[in-house]
Amino acid sequence: MAKTNSGRFFEDYKIGDVISHAVPRTVGEGERALYHALYPARHALYSSDEFARDCGLPESPLDDLAAFHVVFGKTVPDVSLNAVANLGYAEGKWLKPVFAGDTLRSVSEVIGLKQNSNGKSGVVYVRTRGLNQLDEVVLDYVRWVMVRKNNLDAPAPETVIPDLNTVIPVEELVIPEGLDFRNYDFVQAGEPHRWGDYEIGEVIDHVDGVTIEEAEHMIATRLWQNTAKVHFDATFRPDGQRLIYGGHIISMARALSFNGLANAQMIVGLNGGAHANPCFSGLTVKAWSEVLDKAETSAPGVGAIRLRLVATSGGEPFALKGEDGKYKPEVLLDLDYWALMPM
Amino acid sequence: MAKTNSGRFFEDYKIGDVISHAVPRTVGEGERALYHALYPARHALYSSDEFARDCGLPESPLDDLAAFHVVFGKTVPDVSLNAVANLGYAEGKWLKPVFAGDTLRSVSEVIGLKQNSNGKSGVVYVRTRGLNQLDEVVLDYVRWVMVRKNNLDAPAPETVIPDLNTVIPVEELVIPEGLDFRNYDFVQAGEPHRWGDYEIGEVIDHVDGVTIEEAEHMIATRLWQNTAKVHFDATFRPDGQRLIYGGHIISMARALSFNGLANAQMIVGLNGGAHANPCFSGLTVKAWSEVLDKAETSAPGVGAIRLRLVATSGGEPFALKGEDGKYKPEVLLDLDYWALMPM
Amino acid sequence: MAKTNSGRFFEDYKIGDVISHAVPRTVGEGERALYHALYPARHALYSSDEFARDCGLPESPLDDLAAFHVVFGKTVPDVSLNAVANLGYAEGKWLKPVFAGDTLRSVSEVIGLKQNSNGKSGVVYVRTRGLNQLDEVVLDYVRWVMVRKNNLDAPAPETVIPDLNTVIPVEELVIPEGLDFRNYDFVQAGEPHRWGDYEIGEVIDHVDGVTIEEAEHMIATRLWQNTAKVHFDATFRPDGQRLIYGGHIISMARALSFNGLANAQMIVGLNGGAHANPCFSGLTVKAWSEVLDKAETSAPGVGAIRLRLVATSGGEPFALKGEDGKYKPEVLLDLDYWALMPM
Repeated sequence: MAKTNSGRFFEDYKIGDVISHAVPRTVGEGERALYHALYPARHALYSSDEFARDCGLPESPLDDLAAFHVVFGKTVPDVSLNAVANLGYAEGKWLKPVFAGDTLRSVSEVIGLKQNSNGKSGVVYVRTRGLNQLDEVVLDYVRWVMVRKNNLDAPAPETVIPDLNTVIPVEELVIPEGLDFRNYDFVQAGEPHRWGDYEIGEVIDHVDGVTIEEAEHMIATRLWQNTAKVHFDATFRPDGQRLIYGGHIISMARALSFNGLANAQMIVGLNGGAHANPCFSGLTVKAWSEVLDKAETSAPGVGAIRLRLVATSGGEPFALKGEDGKYKPEVLLDLDYWALMPM
Repeated sequence: MAKTNSGRFFEDYKIGDVISHAVPRTVGEGERALYHALYPARHALYSSDEFARDCGLPESPLDDLAAFHVVFGKTVPDVSLNAVANLGYAEGKWLKPVFAGDTLRSVSEVIGLKQNSNGKSGVVYVRTRGLNQLDEVVLDYVRWVMVRKNNLDAPAPETVIPDLNTVIPVEELVIPEGLDFRNYDFVQAGEPHRWGDYEIGEVIDHVDGVTIEEAEHMIATRLWQNTAKVHFDATFRPDGQRLIYGGHIISMARALSFNGLANAQMIVGLNGGAHANPCFSGLTVKAWSEVLDKAETSAPGVGAIRLRLVATSGGEPFALKGEDGKYKPEVLLDLDYWALMPM
Repeated sequence: MAKTNSGRFFEDYKIGDVISHAVPRTVGEGERALYHALYPARHALYSSDEFARDCGLPESPLDDLAAFHVVFGKTVPDVSLNAVANLGYAEGKWLKPVFAGDTLRSVSEVIGLKQNSNGKSGVVYVRTRGLNQLDEVVLDYVRWVMVRKNNLDAPAPETVIPDLNTVIPVEELVIPEGLDFRNYDFVQAGEPHRWGDYEIGEVIDHVDGVTIEEAEHMIATRLWQNTAKVHFDATFRPDGQRLIYGGHIISMARALSFNGLANAQMIVGLNGGAHANPCFSGLTVKAWSEVLDKAETSAPGVGAIRLRLVATSGGEPFALKGEDGKYKPEVLLDLDYWALMPM
């Protein structure tokens, strides 16, 4: 029994702990094809090597969110096996595209701890880095989770809450080396709307919907080697339902956002995100976006656009919270990210 | 709102319009593996690089129908988003095999228009070409769909009905460069029956059946980047059912036809096809074939065989239409194609 | 009708018959990705090219069980299409790793026959070899199945029961060329437990569970080109259930065993196995293991460990058989294999 991993509890984390997460993963053409099979992903830069080359990249990279899922998945056995809730993300930066043949691994550092007043759980903040086979950091983000205590008598640690940007300043965004949108092919990309066509405050209903099946979210979540029982084992929750991995909803909503945001090609920053309500199979996921900000970048023809991406399981678009200030029950996801778009 | 694609309506098409469809796609080993995972595909030329080389090809190409689905999928947002029905196919020719690493895109030309007498919809005929990264045409076919009018006051266009071959003459079929069946390995291919063993009029019950699941047809249809809502969104139809992409049934039936037609290796011509009845998950698809014609070709050891491929959801094999001349309710597909077979 | 394969019946097998099974298969990155999507597979040697290189291999091979499934799948149309039951395995040896780009085919020899006393069926023993494109044997195993007679009047063959090892002697295990565990990275592999930390008789509950969906087991079984109707056609069995391919349970249990046996990296021997009870979708598969034996090997830093792997659909771990000596109804699989582990 002692040989299996029962996960860490709140009292097992110390500020400054560095955790090298297990199971490096080589990604390739198979992961790319599966990403297209699991999500209605159509952003041209991730679909066509030719399109990517015309934008200055050596070939089509792995979808930014697929890279995120692989890096995130590795952290689950060490960070969230005993998590009660995934509370938030911040300062997510994509630093290098991931290409077929790259091998990814993850390392996390504990940067914040706060025991809850009930003494039964606490919040753990980790900064996670995804590295490739050259030890280059490809992704860097902070997330915080609520984790149960196992030993309720363990003393509360000194409270440390990291100082995190609520929005990544545009000058800190990293543009992939060589990226150039001056010869961007809007016809092949699917929409004529360029960076200048979007206005801050504009909202877009992405119209399409996808009804989720158990087999699909499990195939996706396993592909990222995310092992959390709650996604796979129908006997785990008292209600017999399998909770869908929040990242599945992120990818589904992002793929649906093609319809209206086909030119928001690359995700380079994750400012924040909330999994507002749990999602289960049988629900139909739809999405809408809001333009939160815009900025120029130093790369030729490349603008940055800050977007709110909201996934819902029904209801009217553009409704986020109720009069009580809480997310409406049909809101699944409220994500805040920076993308790159042709100017 | 104006940023999302609401699709074209009947009045938006003009004879001679050329539509460059969006989102080029690089295909590779992942798509090949997924094709084998989604359909019981066993034709040896598409399963083994060694077998393909022994037949004179550089390596195993992407399944001909997978190439078709990729090219077809790109046309959906421009041609069939507001389609009431997919009415037919003609003059489909596979002109070049698609290999791993190829990038496909699609271009369609409007070649026919006929408004319906009710004034609410019309038939649009398009000739679609799939091109690779060298701008070589790999596939060329005509399909016609019934499309709704949005503006009922729009004047009816002049009726143009293209003159289409009901059967592609064998001399117009394109045999892949280098194809040579003189050293064909019948044992590894799975059956001893050669071109000479099939008689015109012969019928073959392919025996096997596959019960279709929602997750499978959605994974397949998404893989081809086909975005029609009706396949994915259970809230779209009043009956809460997701209509299965007709191409999924084509691939399923073709794969099932291995059992009896293992040596009908390559599809080179699509003479016509009707999706006789809609298919939904839970149905069990079976298939039968009829030999419609045979012809010699100029390639060494290569014969052409014209086949009717019928998919059903039950009932007796070889029953196609009722006394009323209409397809029986269990008939899902009636396809007419040319394949290449060792002589 | 005569053109389809109705499979062999008991009276069709003769001792010494050699059957070259059809449809060679080239495997690659797509199959690797799908294996990770279908099973919670995390053994580092099969996940990371870098990890594999650090262990002396040229790159990450295809999962040993994926290689087994591909070789096995080809035998189904010739060996088990009319099988009543898959009775056992013995002397399974992995002789060479399978790498992306390899093309596999299978050849079986009939090595045993025994008609049942009821005269309606008999047991067929075959030794199957999987070969790559260089005609190197990559896998060699014996299985026996109970097959129906078609012609009940056919005379019983002379009974021949092959003399099979119940356990492969450790000196007959083949260690992949170059394998070296002296610099094994236990942190990246996911667990600190080395060969010396396991004791004969030790049992491990692998804790995690996966609820099985129809779409998933069909996608997996098709990927191996296993065509047995009973896995795919819901109209085949009177109860309308699709029997899950036994190999799907083997792979699921092996992947679940990562939690406690993360360092049992490579499977090199299959001593025996029983599919104790059938498995259907909706069941939740869990697994436990027992250490049956340990031995040193000639390879640097590489120990061999013999494991019993038991898959269940519920019940308490470590319970295998009832007082009647029969497998408990919740036991799905009882497998006996040799794996390689860092010392």
